[in-house]
Amino acid sequence: MRRAVALAALGLGGTSPNPVVGCVILAADGSIAGEGLHHRAGGPHAEVAALRAAGAAASGGTAVVTLEPCDHSGRTGPCSRALIAAGIRRVVYAVPDANPAASGGGRTLRAAGLEVVGGVLAEEAARGNRHWLLATARHRPFVTWKYGATLDGRVAAADGSSRWVTGEEARRDAHRLRAAHDAVLVGAGTLRTDDPSLDLRHGVVGRPPLRVVAASSARGLPAAARIWDGSAPTLLAVAEPDSAAGLPAEVEVLAVPRGPQGRGVDLGVLLRELYVRGVRSVLAEGGPTLAGALLEAGLVDEVVGYLAPSVLGAGPSSLASAAMPSVGAAARFVFGAVTRLGADLRISATPVPAAVPSAAPVAAAAGSGAVAR
Amino acid sequence: MRRAVALAALGLGGTSPNPVVGCVILAADGSIAGEGLHHRAGGPHAEVAALRAAGAAASGGTAVVTLEPCDHSGRTGPCSRALIAAGIRRVVYAVPDANPAASGGGRTLRAAGLEVVGGVLAEEAARGNRHWLLATARHRPFVTWKYGATLDGRVAAADGSSRWVTGEEARRDAHRLRAAHDAVLVGAGTLRTDDPSLDLRHGVVGRPPLRVVAASSARGLPAAARIWDGSAPTLLAVAEPDSAAGLPAEVEVLAVPRGPQGRGVDLGVLLRELYVRGVRSVLAEGGPTLAGALLEAGLVDEVVGYLAPSVLGAGPSSLASAAMPSVGAAARFVFGAVTRLGADLRISATPVPAAVPSAAPVAAAAGSGAVAR
Ligand SMILES: NC(=O)c1ccc[n+]([C@@H]2O[C@H](COP(=O)([O-])OP(=O)(O)OC[C@H]3O[C@@H](n4cnc5c(N)ncnc54)[C@H](OP(=O)(O)O)[C@@H]3O)[C@@H](O)[C@H]2O)c1
Ligand SMILES: NC(=O)c1ccc[n+]([C@@H]2O[C@H](COP(=O)([O-])OP(=O)(O)OC[C@H]3O[C@@H](n4cnc5c(N)ncnc54)[C@H](OP(=O)(O)O)[C@@H]3O)[C@@H](O)[C@H]2O)c1
Repeated sequence: MRRAVALAALGLGGTSPNPVVGCVILAADGSIAGEGLHHRAGGPHAEVAALRAAGAAASGGTAVVTLEPCDHSGRTGPCSRALIAAGIRRVVYAVPDANPAASGGGRTLRAAGLEVVGGVLAEEAARGNRHWLLATARHRPFVTWKYGATLDGRVAAADGSSRWVTGEEARRDAHRLRAAHDAVLVGAGTLRTDDPSLDLRHGVVGRPPLRVVAASSARGLPAAARIWDGSAPTLLAVAEPDSAAGLPAEVEVLAVPRGPQGRGVDLGVLLRELYVRGVRSVLAEGGPTLAGALLEAGLVDEVVGYLAPSVLGAGPSSLASAAMPSVGAAARFVFGAVTRLGADLRISATPVPAAVPSAAPVAAAAGSGAVAR
Repeated sequence: MRRAVALAALGLGGTSPNPVVGCVILAADGSIAGEGLHHRAGGPHAEVAALRAAGAAASGGTAVVTLEPCDHSGRTGPCSRALIAAGIRRVVYAVPDANPAASGGGRTLRAAGLEVVGGVLAEEAARGNRHWLLATARHRPFVTWKYGATLDGRVAAADGSSRWVTGEEARRDAHRLRAAHDAVLVGAGTLRTDDPSLDLRHGVVGRPPLRVVAASSARGLPAAARIWDGSAPTLLAVAEPDSAAGLPAEVEVLAVPRGPQGRGVDLGVLLRELYVRGVRSVLAEGGPTLAGALLEAGLVDEVVGYLAPSVLGAGPSSLASAAMPSVGAAARFVFGAVTRLGADLRISATPVPAAVPSAAPVAAAAGSGAVAR
């Protein structure tokens, strides 16, 4: 199952609106007969890919899969049927499928006389699928807030420069993080100051994420910004859609109501619109104002910080918000993995109370999602 | 030697103006016959303490010591003589003594026919003695800048509250850090906002460090501040000494010239004055203005940051300075140990280029110190 979870992770950023799934087929003698993963929506499911790789060796064997096999005829036909047809005798899965249209695979398999065991390494598998599980439960994408800061918490210097706070290894990791998300979100301020291209570089390959800019109006945005270059799908979420008339036709303009206190756009509405477009995960890459607005709206599900061993003494901090005037009102997280990346540190954290559904709540949330996978 | 270095570390914060030293005596058969460390200036040296513990078993044995044994008749008589008298045959030491009045112990031992080996585990031992080694070389105390901050780099909330950004385990560790330094330094701002007591609590015992406040004038300081309570030696470094007339008599008032641009006091002068008073290490415990001034003056030798998994969105950052207006001008450090303390992270870092002298530069710097140990 650990191997299946690792296989599933290779699909991150490519499978939406579907979950990531990995599958290992063991032959009757217990040896590995085939492996597979779900690469992209419309492509073969992990079970089907693994069965193909295993061929005749699957007969009498065991399928180990990170998610309960689906039971519906979506774009690829139910996996339960495929497993039965291949002569699989035993199915071991980690997380039950929260999608009512797809679930029931376990029941079908049992009815066909197969031995079915669920819940194996469920927490680890649910962690690997947390983007999709949370999105399915909440009808909005999972949001990772990412920043790169100095020891004194600055994301840019007094002159606005923020390139490069962190080193090459941290930047490469940040691009891998980008590749594992369906969309990248920045505020108008970052577009104005940094003119980021938000594409995949540093040797990272994959489907380029949707580039999303949130702004009150397109008027304050640079007409020649890199983000309008057409190299990847781009969406401008704006409260004054008329202001976007001059932008290239490839840029999708989305009208979103103003946010709280008339600031920017309503980020909850924006995220729900992105969900409807199939986006299951968003990497919020700055700046501090947008990060603060996401936090205030309860829309931060994970934090990834790259900490550089330097100080700047002035410049914006990674998050700006007036909602936490005292230490007692601080928004609290729990540290996850902390790793060294070259000279820098990578810190991850999740909110308290945990916004990440574990295997159990996910099962309870079944019925709330209706996504064909 | 590793054991001797560990023994030496137990003396940190108590031995100034002397170094920390640990010693293990091995009997002729190689078994441990005795251990000792230097606890406080005026008390027995590590070698003498270890010889006492070993008794007759020292004869024909080996002395393993973190610093070259001294050769001068200070308050306790030369250790070289004591080792010879006890019948020690072999002396293994880590770091040569940089103090010209005390060094030469190796020569004396060799002349008496003992086998002498220097430089064993020298880097590790020099790290353990870095406060004293740097202080002796620079004639000013080693300065550790300590802060407790949130993920967004805030050391206090918008309302000025900073208790408690970090949790109990981090606070206990910070008190251990205090106990390992000879003095604690805060600026007038922290005294005004936090009214800290700067004593040893959280179950940490030891000699309470000298409490030092740096301010332009005593006028802006609260007359009823905890720091004036007489529970530990206290020093007010002030540019306008007349303003301190109303303070309790136990408080030492030190007149120090104004700092650069007329701000506060000249911290280089203050540190040299502390050195003259026997202070070999200072823990700068805030706030951001003082930390910035220390950094600008090149007076930060180590950083210890306690990072809490929370965000505040507003409030002062851990360091304030106008000297680094662009990312290219950032002051650079190298991360040392990173550890978890309860829910928090402890981060350490040292400046680039390393301000911490290793064994070799210390030997080269011999002749610059003149401290009786
Ligand atoms: N090191 C890093 O990780 C990093 C990453 C990104 C940015 N940065 C730095 O951050 C600085 C830019 O900071 P910033 O805070 O100005 O940029 P920002 O957070 O990217 O953009 C702020 C803008 O977002 C728009 N917005 C949309 N919805 C909003 C809402 N609900 N609430 C509030 N604002 C909303 C507003 O645009 P309108 O003005 O149109 O209303 C607002 O002015 C730059 O110096 C940049 O270099 C650093
Ligand atoms: N979480 C933490 O680790 C932590 C630790 C400490 C403080 N804090 C927070 O930090 C805030 C206080 O910050 P702060 O920056 O005002 O306090 P600060 O750095 O402690 O004090 C600044 C004052 O130091 C004096 N000073 C002496 N020599 C100076 C020099 N060479 N250059 C500049 N100033 C010199 C000046 O006093 P004059 O005004 O007399 O000129 C200056 O106003 C509070 O909110 C406190 O809670 C947090």
